[in-house]
Amino acid sequence: MLWNGELMSPTWKICLLAFSIFFSFSRPSQCFTFPPATHLRRHAGPRMPLRASAAVISEQPPVAAARGDGDFVTSVFDKETIALADRQESIVRGGRDLFPKLKDAFAGIKQIGVIGWSSQGPAQAQNLRESLEGTDVKVVVGLREGSPSEKKAEAAGFTKESGTLGEMYDVISSSDLVLLLIADAAQAENYQQIFKAMKPGATLGLSHGFLLGYLDSRGEAFPADINVIAVCPKGMGPSVRRLYVQGKEKNGAGINCSFAVHQDVTGRATEIALGWAVAIGAPFSFLTTLRDEYTSDIFGERGILLGAVHGLTEVLYSYFKAHGSTPEEAFRRAAECLTGPITKQISKEGLLAVYEGLSEDDRRLFEKAYSATYHPAKETLLEIYDDVKSGREIGSVVDANQRFKRYPMGKIDGTEMWVVGERVRADRQPVDIDPTTAGMYMAIMVAQVDVLLEKGHAYSEVANESIIEAVDSLNPYIDYKGIAYMVDNCSTTARLGSRKWAPRFHYNLMQQAITAMESGGALDESLMSSFKSHKIHDIMRVCAQLRPPVDIAVV
Amino acid sequence: MLWNGELMSPTWKICLLAFSIFFSFSRPSQCFTFPPATHLRRHAGPRMPLRASAAVISEQPPVAAARGDGDFVTSVFDKETIALADRQESIVRGGRDLFPKLKDAFAGIKQIGVIGWSSQGPAQAQNLRESLEGTDVKVVVGLREGSPSEKKAEAAGFTKESGTLGEMYDVISSSDLVLLLIADAAQAENYQQIFKAMKPGATLGLSHGFLLGYLDSRGEAFPADINVIAVCPKGMGPSVRRLYVQGKEKNGAGINCSFAVHQDVTGRATEIALGWAVAIGAPFSFLTTLRDEYTSDIFGERGILLGAVHGLTEVLYSYFKAHGSTPEEAFRRAAECLTGPITKQISKEGLLAVYEGLSEDDRRLFEKAYSATYHPAKETLLEIYDDVKSGREIGSVVDANQRFKRYPMGKIDGTEMWVVGERVRADRQPVDIDPTTAGMYMAIMVAQVDVLLEKGHAYSEVANESIIEAVDSLNPYIDYKGIAYMVDNCSTTARLGSRKWAPRFHYNLMQQAITAMESGGALDESLMSSFKSHKIHDIMRVCAQLRPPVDIAVV
Repeated sequence: MLWNGELMSPTWKICLLAFSIFFSFSRPSQCFTFPPATHLRRHAGPRMPLRASAAVISEQPPVAAARGDGDFVTSVFDKETIALADRQESIVRGGRDLFPKLKDAFAGIKQIGVIGWSSQGPAQAQNLRESLEGTDVKVVVGLREGSPSEKKAEAAGFTKESGTLGEMYDVISSSDLVLLLIADAAQAENYQQIFKAMKPGATLGLSHGFLLGYLDSRGEAFPADINVIAVCPKGMGPSVRRLYVQGKEKNGAGINCSFAVHQDVTGRATEIALGWAVAIGAPFSFLTTLRDEYTSDIFGERGILLGAVHGLTEVLYSYFKAHGSTPEEAFRRAAECLTGPITKQISKEGLLAVYEGLSEDDRRLFEKAYSATYHPAKETLLEIYDDVKSGREIGSVVDANQRFKRYPMGKIDGTEMWVVGERVRADRQPVDIDPTTAGMYMAIMVAQVDVLLEKGHAYSEVANESIIEAVDSLNPYIDYKGIAYMVDNCSTTARLGSRKWAPRFHYNLMQQAITAMESGGALDESLMSSFKSHKIHDIMRVCAQLRPPVDIAVV
Repeated sequence: MLWNGELMSPTWKICLLAFSIFFSFSRPSQCFTFPPATHLRRHAGPRMPLRASAAVISEQPPVAAARGDGDFVTSVFDKETIALADRQESIVRGGRDLFPKLKDAFAGIKQIGVIGWSSQGPAQAQNLRESLEGTDVKVVVGLREGSPSEKKAEAAGFTKESGTLGEMYDVISSSDLVLLLIADAAQAENYQQIFKAMKPGATLGLSHGFLLGYLDSRGEAFPADINVIAVCPKGMGPSVRRLYVQGKEKNGAGINCSFAVHQDVTGRATEIALGWAVAIGAPFSFLTTLRDEYTSDIFGERGILLGAVHGLTEVLYSYFKAHGSTPEEAFRRAAECLTGPITKQISKEGLLAVYEGLSEDDRRLFEKAYSATYHPAKETLLEIYDDVKSGREIGSVVDANQRFKRYPMGKIDGTEMWVVGERVRADRQPVDIDPTTAGMYMAIMVAQVDVLLEKGHAYSEVANESIIEAVDSLNPYIDYKGIAYMVDNCSTTARLGSRKWAPRFHYNLMQQAITAMESGGALDESLMSSFKSHKIHDIMRVCAQLRPPVDIAVV
């Protein structure tokens, strides 16, 4: 979960008025098969309706849900199977036409408690309320007593008077579905009391698997008598809301989601998860596990989604300056070109188009940069993956949150590159694609794809956490606000990750990639050929077809 | 344990011929009290002479030994109490005149197995053999079957024919004291088989606590029926050997050691540890715990002993270039001045002398740099300490060793700064102390002292792991071989640490310290005043008095 509410300052909201992201779209009829709903249930969880003690943490291992290549059963929604390169994955397509099904999906649920009002909270609470209009399901926002967010929730129509705004633990204990959308550190700090407050048989919903990672690192587990599910929008809260609103005109506008069923004690967890995803406007939802989700998410934001972009642009800035560029020119070639034209072309036409659009000479520069970068990037990414998977990264986030009491996190925006950048951005000019920047950037991106594939993630997850979230959600915002701004203002977990890994990418690329480029290192033909024939191109083509042609216009 | 055998290439040995370190020394009679040996035993361990099963890892928590401020009992050696600032610490002074006592210290020990022949192995095996001449204690070297080190051990007089060289597990199972001096990764890989091979009631000796950290991270422990002790020389193996040889002429020449008694099942562990320290030539030995040892050691080499020096010199190099220095000049001001005159002056006259030796104008520059650097450095050091203490750093070293099968660690020496450095070093000129370099370097050093003090380490350990090992052991070697050479050739654990934390120091200092210096940030008067009145100056003064005036002349 890269972005938190800090981004939603009034200025920011106003500034984004004119901003748009373009999605390409065509109905992929040839790619889909529509099998009858099967009743195969590969990873059904045990049912444990009784709670030994309200405060007890289960000593049983959490129920393993299916990995991305697993399958799921739904009798409420239509499951589709899509062909992604050499694999088939099951998805559920969303749309406003499905809202009448929500009553069945949420059978037995009288109250949904949305806990927290930062990035996902406002979006999901409002979307759910509107999607559930006409049903008897009540959406209630829960906040800390005296939270400064109360006024914002009230402005959005959640009020104490109407019983749709309350103290968080009151809301948790009276809800049948609890969406826990507070910050990672707050989850780690308060999980015991939250678990204690939940009704037996209720459903805990997460939009990010951090809490499971934290529990794993402590050898603990969720209470055994609740459902635990996740619906994870592959974009920040404001996009989830804005596209939902726009979906009133263009059915299917929204942010795609992964979903996971981690514990299913009532047998209804999958339907609830799918109902939740459809209700917040996901154009399509794909299956993951909560562990795969948090691993790929925390890994992804440390890699190409933010950390690697920060480190790479710093390296490129030095490199271009060392080779004769003025500071302003170096900034344009390193940063502006990456978040601008490279991002736009990948989004609209795919990775290969960037390469194929280059002149012959520029292709050689791209290949040289790609060849020099792929391996040092992959080495760094493998290290990040190990650190996330082992729980070390989550442990370090928790410890960092403690240290902030003494040393609040510093800012990066005072250093030369970002000061120059502010000047450049104040007087923006169109920039061309620099082949070296494109080659290095896309080598890191493909290395990230390869690490996730190697680790067995669902192809939909691989594409989303390496490319789609970058080029359709984050880079456009980064282009608008600047890399330094994003590194200094995103969620604490992502910010820490960027501060930790950007310098590692910087040094590894400087020591291995730049030195190879400068010494005229040979092209790696086999690397280039596996880039050109990579299965990710087909996966991206299918994923692109699943999304509606809507321009975000954030107010 | 910063250095491993890789440093001892023949070229390296030859090159060091002319190299010397100067110790200042005066008998500190006024600082010492010589109390009678007491029989106070504050942290005596339980005795567990029986082994449930040879392969079983004890489920009991390891016996907590005293922290540095704890005390110990010896009836063989004379314990002295030294006053270090506001604290008293117990030490044992060494010397060749004590060798006749080794028979008593090693009572019951017929064979000492020295396992491994990299850095500490050759030094300790030879020193022990010579110190124990005339006793019936046999020193046997144990190596992997077919190890390429066999020839080196044979050249040093350990042979299969004489029964003083054997296969490591044979040596382990036949030894009463086993000194496990193999690399960290090899310890992590083979510890179960090593534990299984040990005789009940035997003593496991370590020169570094890494293995305990690894066991901690896995929730495991040493077998319950052996003694576990550590003697950790505060310098690399070649110095341990060379100074011992020189000690034949100047009694007391050697490398000071910390020692720890982690498990004492026979009641003799303390005497054995002290005997070991005296036998390898430690001029004085101070008490620590195995956990404090590995924490401060792994922390220290990530900080000012190597990682911080690498990151700082990169930052300074950029800073000086950005302010008009030529690359050569920038390298001299950043690197040559740090490992040269600043190191020499701290070693001979202490930290304050560097500051006091500056002109009025230069003092202002020093103060500005010190003020800007202390807090970002301390923030980074606190993070390192948390990562080491939590076991995360050890876990990451173990994982990295696995990844090397795919991606061997890259080199740093091809980047601009180090290429320039090689040119500069080929044509060396005397350099003056640069006040900015001195201010930044000493701010990190004092921040490291403050973190270790805050975390409760013995003062002797604080001084050794922050200052003494830097200015008397490592920096002179670094000055001789170059920072990049050392980062690329030291022990795997240290190398990984430097590669991980140097970029973090670089970014944090660039983002916070350099920006503060460039924006004319105010002097922090309270920081400067606590520097001037810091207790470390008194601690250093006493520690300096404990070492003999010997110049290392490595052949």
